[in-house]
Parts: sequence; C-alpha cells; structure tokens
Amino acid sequence: MLTLSSPLDMHVHLRQDAMLRFTAPYTARDFAAAVIMPNLQPPVTTLEQLLDYRQAILHAAGHPFEPLMTLFFRDYSLAELEAARPHIIGIKLYPAGMTTNSEAGLADPVLAGRMLGHMAELDIPLLIHGESRGFVLDRENLFLPVVDGWAREHPRLHIVLEHVTTREAMALLDRHENLFATVTLHHLLITLDDVLGGLMRPHLFCKPVAKRPEDREALREAASRHPKVFFGSDTAPHPVHAKEAPGCAAGIFSAPVALPALAACFEEMNCLENLQAFVSDRARAAYGIIPPQKTVTLRRKPWTVPARLGDVVPFLAGETLGWKVAACT
Amino acid sequence: MLTLSSPLDMHVHLRQDAMLRFTAPYTARDFAAAVIMPNLQPPVTTLEQLLDYRQAILHAAGHPFEPLMTLFFRDYSLAELEAARPHIIGIKLYPAGMTTNSEAGLADPVLAGRMLGHMAELDIPLLIHGESRGFVLDRENLFLPVVDGWAREHPRLHIVLEHVTTREAMALLDRHENLFATVTLHHLLITLDDVLGGLMRPHLFCKPVAKRPEDREALREAASRHPKVFFGSDTAPHPVHAKEAPGCAAGIFSAPVALPALAACFEEMNCLENLQAFVSDRARAAYGIIPPQKTVTLRRKPWTVPARLGDVVPFLAGETLGWKVAACT
Repeated sequence: MLTLSSPLDMHVHLRQDAMLRFTAPYTARDFAAAVIMPNLQPPVTTLEQLLDYRQAILHAAGHPFEPLMTLFFRDYSLAELEAARPHIIGIKLYPAGMTTNSEAGLADPVLAGRMLGHMAELDIPLLIHGESRGFVLDRENLFLPVVDGWAREHPRLHIVLEHVTTREAMALLDRHENLFATVTLHHLLITLDDVLGGLMRPHLFCKPVAKRPEDREALREAASRHPKVFFGSDTAPHPVHAKEAPGCAAGIFSAPVALPALAACFEEMNCLENLQAFVSDRARAAYGIIPPQKTVTLRRKPWTVPARLGDVVPFLAGETLGWKVAACT
Repeated sequence: MLTLSSPLDMHVHLRQDAMLRFTAPYTARDFAAAVIMPNLQPPVTTLEQLLDYRQAILHAAGHPFEPLMTLFFRDYSLAELEAARPHIIGIKLYPAGMTTNSEAGLADPVLAGRMLGHMAELDIPLLIHGESRGFVLDRENLFLPVVDGWAREHPRLHIVLEHVTTREAMALLDRHENLFATVTLHHLLITLDDVLGGLMRPHLFCKPVAKRPEDREALREAASRHPKVFFGSDTAPHPVHAKEAPGCAAGIFSAPVALPALAACFEEMNCLENLQAFVSDRARAAYGIIPPQKTVTLRRKPWTVPARLGDVVPFLAGETLGWKVAACT
C-alpha cells in the first residue's frame, strides 16, 4: 500500500466543452490540484475568460479539486497583471507554433523583456514551453540559451521549464536558483524508440518528442532526487480520429494512469519513498502553495488499462499495471 | 524536356497478389528494370519461389520491364547458389526484425562468414539493409563496423548498402572499392522534421527513418556526384488502414512519382545533367549489367499527385510537381 498526501499535477490540458467534461474527472479524482494550461481556442488571455474557464473546470470535475489557473503569455499591462495575480499561479509562455494551439504564442524571445520584469516584480511565475524553431530533436536545447538569459536577467523571476526532455535542459537547473522543471510520466517511460523504432505509434507522439535513452536516464535521475523537479503530466487528450490520421496531433492522455504508473516507475527506480516529493512536496516548496488536503491510496493490484476511454486512447492502453488507485479522500 | 535512357530502380518492394498487380505497373512503366526485394511472406528463399515470383511480376507489369531478382539471405549451400546464380542479381540480407517481413533475417552477423565467401567466389552481390539493434537513430551507424569488416574480409564481394540515410554511412564508401550504396527519393527530400516536427505524418514513416538535415545534405551531395551511389527508391506500399493506425507500418510508396520528383530535386541541386548517371549509368557500371532499352521523356508540366492511388497514399500526395513523365518507349 502507498499513501500520497495531496498529489499535484503541475501541467495538465483539460481542453474545453465536451472534452473538458470527459477529461476533468480523471485529474480531479486523483489529484488535489493541478496547473491548468491556457492554450485553448482562443487562448486564455483575459481574466474574464480565465474565471469562466475555472468555473467550467469546477463544474466538470466531479471531485474536490483546485484548478491552479494560468494565463497565456502576451503583452499584458501592469494593471492587468495586478488584477490577475490573485487568480493565477503563473503565466504560460509558448513560442509560436511549437505545439497544439500555440499559434498565438511568442514570435521573438526578445519581446518578452518588459513583461518578465513586471512578472518578477509581482512575483508571478513564468511557465515555459521551451522549444525554438529548428530541427525537431534540437529544439529544446536550442531554447536553453534564452532560458539561461532570462533566468540571469531576472533573478527574482520564478521560472518553470515545462515537460523537460533532455539531459542538457536538466543540467541548466543547477545554474540558476530561480529555475525549476516539470517532468511528465511518459518522458520517464518512453524514448523515440518507442515512438518509431518498431511500428510508428501515434498515441506516443507528443511535443516535445521523446528523446534518447541517455536523456530519459537524466530525467529519471532528476525525478527521483532533484529538489527543483516535480511532476507535470502534460496530459493532453485528442480524439482517436485526430491521432490515427495522415496528420497526427501531438499529445498523450496520461491522467487516468498517472499515479499507478508513477508508483511502478519509482518502484523500478528503487525510490518509491521519493514519489511523495515528486508528486507534491517539491512543487509546494517551489510555488509556495498549500494545496487542499486529499489522501490518495494505491494498492498493489494488477489492472489492465482500457484500450479506449470515451473517444480517446489513454497512455499505456492495454498494458497491465501493478498498482491501482484504491481510495481518494 | 528531359530524356532518360533506361532508368533503373535498384530497390523496390512490389509485394504479392493484389498489391503486386496494383504496384508493378507503376515501376514497370517508368523503369527499364528494377531490383526486386525478397521480403515476402514467406521470404523468397528457393529458386522455385523466385522464378514463380518473377513470372507473377512479369504478368502484372503491363509494360516491357526486366525484374532483377534477389534471394532472401539464409545459409544456402554452394550448389543452391550455383543454381540460382544465373537468375539473380544478388542476395538481400536483413538483420532480423529491422523492417517489414524481416523476422526471418540474420540474427547474428558473425554467422554470415561462410556464405559471404561463397558469394564472393561466385560473384554474387550482397545487398544489405544495414541496421543493428539499438536506438533507432543510431542503428545504421551501429551497423557500419559490420559492413566495414565484411568489405575488408571479402575484397572480391560486391556489397551494396541499401537506402543509406547517414553521413557516416556515405563516408564509408570511400574506404572500400567493393562497397556501393543506393539512395531513395524520400531520403533526398525529407528529414525527421517532416515526419514528426509538426503533426506526425505516418505516410512519411519508413525504415531506416529519415535523419538530420546534415545527413540529407550528405545524401544529396552523393546522389549528385558520387560514382558509387545510385537510385533505389525503396518504394514500399502499405494500404491506408495499415498506415493510419495505432501501429503504423514502415514504408513509402514512391514509384508513381519517382522520376518527376527526382528531376525536380536534381534541378534544385543544379545538377539535372547528373540524373542519368544516378538513375541508370552508375548502377549499370556497379553491377556490370546492360538493361533493356527504354527511353523515358519528362516534360516541364505541372501536375498534382493524387491524394490516393487505389488503397495507398503515394509519396508527395497532393503536392504539385513541375515535371511529368510524357512518354516511355
């Protein structure tokens, strides 16, 4: 048996409308709170939109749950930032065109300077999808000099590099006190080999794409031990027709399996005792938050992940996991 | 206008049965001859099978066309090799499990030694799918030491490294006089970025997978100028339901667009005058063959590649090419 106190998923895509109603309960059941990504259509760029979205999430959740809201990075005025501040956990920056619904993102990193100054001043964290244009496997590392510059120029700005996939990105954490990172479940489990080393697997396709075995090793090491690295699933459902298609959308729906699969992974890494830190404590410390109390109990009980949940193929579909969520109270 | 004399496709998968009847005419129309891959179900491992398959191809071709047959590498006796020799252009070696229908392939490279000696003695070329087990992007380069060893140990063995995708593999050609290479159309045009840099594209998924921009650059340089590098499309059709699926099969169906797209590519590389060498002359010299006479004329005439041909999505579907095959006589 394993008991987790107020697990947190620091990076989720709950989507909108029917997909939101489908997906929110999975996250809300197993997690006390989650950081909600703002790349909707249109992106969440006003406080009004954000509060409406928060209501829609609470309405769909079906379990006690705290959505930690984020705004989509744009050129906000100081007044807008001050008004938003009590309602947000941070602002999410997407370089334009890097992932699903990111077309409205930042076209040029140098344009971010003024905003970052305001955010540092108001103590609003910056969450980054850290990829540059360039060859797909290089994009994350190509963006690191930008992050390095921002972290140095704005030492009071709290920066979270989201869904880190490379050894090099992980190494940057130790250069800046104000730099943190989330790691997904799938990047702890798969490499590019799983995506296209045998048959090609659209349901394992995500951005950033999974990298090399040595990158996964660095992520595992960091997830198990690094005090500034915490869990953000990047759970991102797409209907099956958008995945098994001539142009397959990027995203992996991991919310239904996140905690059991993490338990199995940490057990395999011989550090099950560190899972509480990874899925909750380090994020609390990094963001200075006290989440609502929720106790999640997992038991050693084999269960097979369904081939399909609604219109979505979940991560690890058809595989049998050794842990199961037994109770959430 | 561009006239090609007896174009040769030195690597094709024509498949079997209904798929053979569908695909053979595309290759047979535009090419004087083609090297036929033997990875059928079951693989072509007897002379009887090979002669039957040759008849089926000629029956399906619908145009004057010479199938250059290959046997699937296994431990043949000297007598078998002697009997097969007049009927084959070479023997194709697959490491086990590396691509479509290669499960019966070679499990351990050291087991090949005796056979390679016989082949060298009988002057039977060895065609290699050169990939080792290992991380998907490293597989071709990991196999190079094996090729290097074979080329050195058997200096009279004519070795063709098929569908080369890396700079390092290309560099090995200059170390051994007896080593040659084919290059596909798609590896001249795409990189891994096209496969999964934006949406993921199952119809651009092939083995070996497309690599980095600098690899493509090396292939383009070699295709345009290297005397030991010639065209092998690796055209490999799969029905659409096997491509747009949870496990997408590897292979690109390029036969219907090969010559026009090559003309456009060589024109872009400012070496259209070298296309005759790439699609025919260098292969004739390498194999010492005199193909049947066929004159193929291409004209500058825009045409749009159909979205679907039969049950297969062809390479460059929906794109408009500036060259079109006007006559084959």
